Amino acid sequence: MAHVKHQKWWGWGEEGVFFNYENKPAFAPFVKEAIGVTLRPRERDTVDFSTANVPASKAPDSVLELLREINGADNVSTDDELRVIHWAGKSVLELLQTLRNDFHRIPDVVVYPGTEDEVTALMRAAVEYDLVLIPFGGGSSISRSLQPDPAEERCIVSVDLGRLNKVLEIDETSGLATIQAGVLGPDMEEQLNARGWTLGHFPDSFTYSTLGGWAATRSSGMQSDKYGDIADIIRGLRMVRATGTVVLRPLPSTSTGPSLREMIIGSEGRLGIITELSVHVHRLPEKHQVIAYMYPTWQQALTAVRQFTEAEIPLAFARVSDAHETAFSLATQKAPTSPKSKLAAKGQDALWAVMRKRGWDTDDMCISYVCFEGSPKDVESRKKAVAGIAKKNGAIVLGSGPGALYDQKKFDTPYLRDFLLEQNTVGDVSETAAPWSKLTTVHKAVYDAAERAYASLGKKGWIMSHMSHSYHSGACLYFTFGYVYDDENPYDEYHTVKSAIQQAFIDNGGTLSHHHGVGLEHQPWMEQDISPEGANIMRALFSSTDPGNNLNPGKVVS
Amino acid sequence: MAHVKHQKWWGWGEEGVFFNYENKPAFAPFVKEAIGVTLRPRERDTVDFSTANVPASKAPDSVLELLREINGADNVSTDDELRVIHWAGKSVLELLQTLRNDFHRIPDVVVYPGTEDEVTALMRAAVEYDLVLIPFGGGSSISRSLQPDPAEERCIVSVDLGRLNKVLEIDETSGLATIQAGVLGPDMEEQLNARGWTLGHFPDSFTYSTLGGWAATRSSGMQSDKYGDIADIIRGLRMVRATGTVVLRPLPSTSTGPSLREMIIGSEGRLGIITELSVHVHRLPEKHQVIAYMYPTWQQALTAVRQFTEAEIPLAFARVSDAHETAFSLATQKAPTSPKSKLAAKGQDALWAVMRKRGWDTDDMCISYVCFEGSPKDVESRKKAVAGIAKKNGAIVLGSGPGALYDQKKFDTPYLRDFLLEQNTVGDVSETAAPWSKLTTVHKAVYDAAERAYASLGKKGWIMSHMSHSYHSGACLYFTFGYVYDDENPYDEYHTVKSAIQQAFIDNGGTLSHHHGVGLEHQPWMEQDISPEGANIMRALFSSTDPGNNLNPGKVVS
Repeated sequence: MAHVKHQKWWGWGEEGVFFNYENKPAFAPFVKEAIGVTLRPRERDTVDFSTANVPASKAPDSVLELLREINGADNVSTDDELRVIHWAGKSVLELLQTLRNDFHRIPDVVVYPGTEDEVTALMRAAVEYDLVLIPFGGGSSISRSLQPDPAEERCIVSVDLGRLNKVLEIDETSGLATIQAGVLGPDMEEQLNARGWTLGHFPDSFTYSTLGGWAATRSSGMQSDKYGDIADIIRGLRMVRATGTVVLRPLPSTSTGPSLREMIIGSEGRLGIITELSVHVHRLPEKHQVIAYMYPTWQQALTAVRQFTEAEIPLAFARVSDAHETAFSLATQKAPTSPKSKLAAKGQDALWAVMRKRGWDTDDMCISYVCFEGSPKDVESRKKAVAGIAKKNGAIVLGSGPGALYDQKKFDTPYLRDFLLEQNTVGDVSETAAPWSKLTTVHKAVYDAAERAYASLGKKGWIMSHMSHSYHSGACLYFTFGYVYDDENPYDEYHTVKSAIQQAFIDNGGTLSHHHGVGLEHQPWMEQDISPEGANIMRALFSSTDPGNNLNPGKVVS
Repeated sequence: MAHVKHQKWWGWGEEGVFFNYENKPAFAPFVKEAIGVTLRPRERDTVDFSTANVPASKAPDSVLELLREINGADNVSTDDELRVIHWAGKSVLELLQTLRNDFHRIPDVVVYPGTEDEVTALMRAAVEYDLVLIPFGGGSSISRSLQPDPAEERCIVSVDLGRLNKVLEIDETSGLATIQAGVLGPDMEEQLNARGWTLGHFPDSFTYSTLGGWAATRSSGMQSDKYGDIADIIRGLRMVRATGTVVLRPLPSTSTGPSLREMIIGSEGRLGIITELSVHVHRLPEKHQVIAYMYPTWQQALTAVRQFTEAEIPLAFARVSDAHETAFSLATQKAPTSPKSKLAAKGQDALWAVMRKRGWDTDDMCISYVCFEGSPKDVESRKKAVAGIAKKNGAIVLGSGPGALYDQKKFDTPYLRDFLLEQNTVGDVSETAAPWSKLTTVHKAVYDAAERAYASLGKKGWIMSHMSHSYHSGACLYFTFGYVYDDENPYDEYHTVKSAIQQAFIDNGGTLSHHHGVGLEHQPWMEQDISPEGANIMRALFSSTDPGNNLNPGKVVS
């Protein structure tokens, strides 16, 4: 279908790529200790689609005919597997629903428009024939921004933007590129890199998410400390509506009233379909290096990162794992096989000895990665400045070896979820942002809330965290949680754990999500986050601009 | 009335403060040459309020009674001078209208709420009794964001927030302060400075503008390169509406759908009244220094500033005057009287000789100011990096003497307008932002448009410009224009010149305003700036959240 790349219908990423633990000797014992599971080698190479019990398409022939007229017959499909691929994102909840055939309501038809005019025609058709349009990028959402309302009776059209995948123009003087919304991360970077440029936006989902998806859900990337969140990167855009196309020309800054750009970013398809974006691009850096540091405690590591921002040291990122995540990272190290890695392993043993000698409790220590980009000279002077602050806060510099390792495997984590699900184990994530003064409280409260949730379910659960992005006034905390799920009632217990974590964010000064968006998943916390009156304004915006409720209804606010 | 500080009813700033040219020997010849006016010494020390022909208040007694109940009798006034002070901002057009008694419609009553509850009661009264509420900060708007609709028949209430003037809290760990919206710039900085902090937001209007006003109109300050535009500085806020208060807690970043924060910033009172803000604050810098540079041409100066941003050198600002503005600056130098200033004047003569020897056309040269803040060590290393790039682009470093001079007189410019008006001369400003690749085109197009407008009016006019703020992808160009106005028809000819400049912005890739907001003044270009469909969304937002059209009606979009 239309040469658009799709993920596995039943899991993350592409068929044939998996998480493996056989070459990581510490991993199985770690998991056993953490949540009581004895890991089995992976058996699930794929899941045969014939096991899926797919609801039939409800698209009337007249609608299908119209859609074929608009997009061409080749770009309209009621194929069951395609409809299932487009029904949801890849949160654990959605993966569980998919594997268990709990599809309730899925798109009736998938369309692949190839031009903005086709998108306009789709929008007009939606209003005229009362269709529901759900825009689709890479399908990597973990906030249920794609799932239709189970009670939806109208014909649901998934609008896959995968054919709009070109870098159209680079303004090299301004560092601005015009790019179509449906391009996947790697395809976009390839086109930019070929001309010496980069967007610098690398979310965990990078390989299976799109520029338009990042815009529609307010994404951040691993290197957003340097390149900015997607809202900073986007300077202009085109968004198609039935009544016309919103055109925002690329502007470095403007005072034209309420920011329409910032209304459209994060709108998750409720205001229209974004087809094109003008974005900041940067020359590929001469040098890119990740250095690892080990801190004796979480608090010292956080203080160090805050001091990097106070000292205005330009960094691509500064990330800190808490003690639990540090232990997890160490447990995922591969067994040393080459002479070089054997030497590194010996070095690590020696390092542990040093730390103990310094009086560290190795259960408390926290690994941190800092990424430097720029000229070799700039990288050196920034490394020196960072090392100075790190050491003042008790850190030991581990160097570029572990840093490079982090850099190589950074996009592999999502595959772990599918591996764990096969073992009846949930491994999922939830993240927030809060002011510096509240980070320790939020962190502790989330641990406590998760533990209470696990206890209420009679489970041994795991939780770990890292600080992923930092700002003048605060930072993002990213949590990963895991437990063995109950085949009888996996959804309620998932909600128990997830909700406990979300509520702890809100109750302690954090937001419901720093960069995963709202969708259906985080909607219950919207009134607590932006206040009931704030949610009223949001509802007024959506209902006045989409009176027929045709545009991804129910997302963000109900 | 309520101890709230007000500006002159007939001009900028406080009574007794004026622009003087007698001590600036080059100024009068310069003005004669530029626009053909022979300057006379200032005669207007003040304007007697009895000369004003003020429309009577239309506030019904029942409304006045209600307002007195809400705000207390001391905080409700129908005094003519107060109503005139609150009827408009300080654009040349508004000053002309005021001096010429062209008041058409002015507020019927001015209220000074002292608490958020009082603001809530006002909002409810507005809905219940169909009143028009226009929030008022320092009255420094130059976009006509305060002027009522001349055809407004309902009772108009100016809500002066001047009593809400406290810094409530500083979170020293997060660099966040909670501050009431009605505080004037200097009063706020005094409260922050006393504890070692600064907001770092210094618009030209600083002395007579408020934090809430900056928020409501999307302000930028002279040092926004470092501290960010007001939209970057504001992390949370409280906005009162009749149906409830929008509460946005301070968050470093969030992905809660369309940004409500960015909808409220710039809303110019149309969504509600902002009472409190959570904002970034910074420790007062150890060192603050402004260095001046002279470039042979405008193009070389712009290239240098762009290269500062590419090199990621942290600067408080980097500002460049074009050749016309450089000539103007030199013409406003005081006559040397002290031995030190006489020496400086001799140095300047020597410098001119050097420049001519280098082959510069002194008519083309452009002065630039760069502001450095940080530790003495950081300031030194950044100065070195900036000097390197400046020199590569042909600049001569003039040093800190002229830089300090710039820093001292930076808030004095607005007084010049009143002086010129007395001489039947308009001096006003208009500003835009555009991508780097378009700056030269915009600059030239604005000069051409102004010249054409002057020619069409049979006038000798003046235009000059500086680049005031820079970003990754572009910069703000700030234009000042002047001409002798015709007493018969001053408004039409003002619109001819101003409109020509605004249209040149839009036609060449610039925005209608980088930081002055929209109001009524820039509204005619909104559809061209954010596209007709974008303006439709904006209208839908306002009409759905303010169905009675009670909140500063007609501003931003009609």
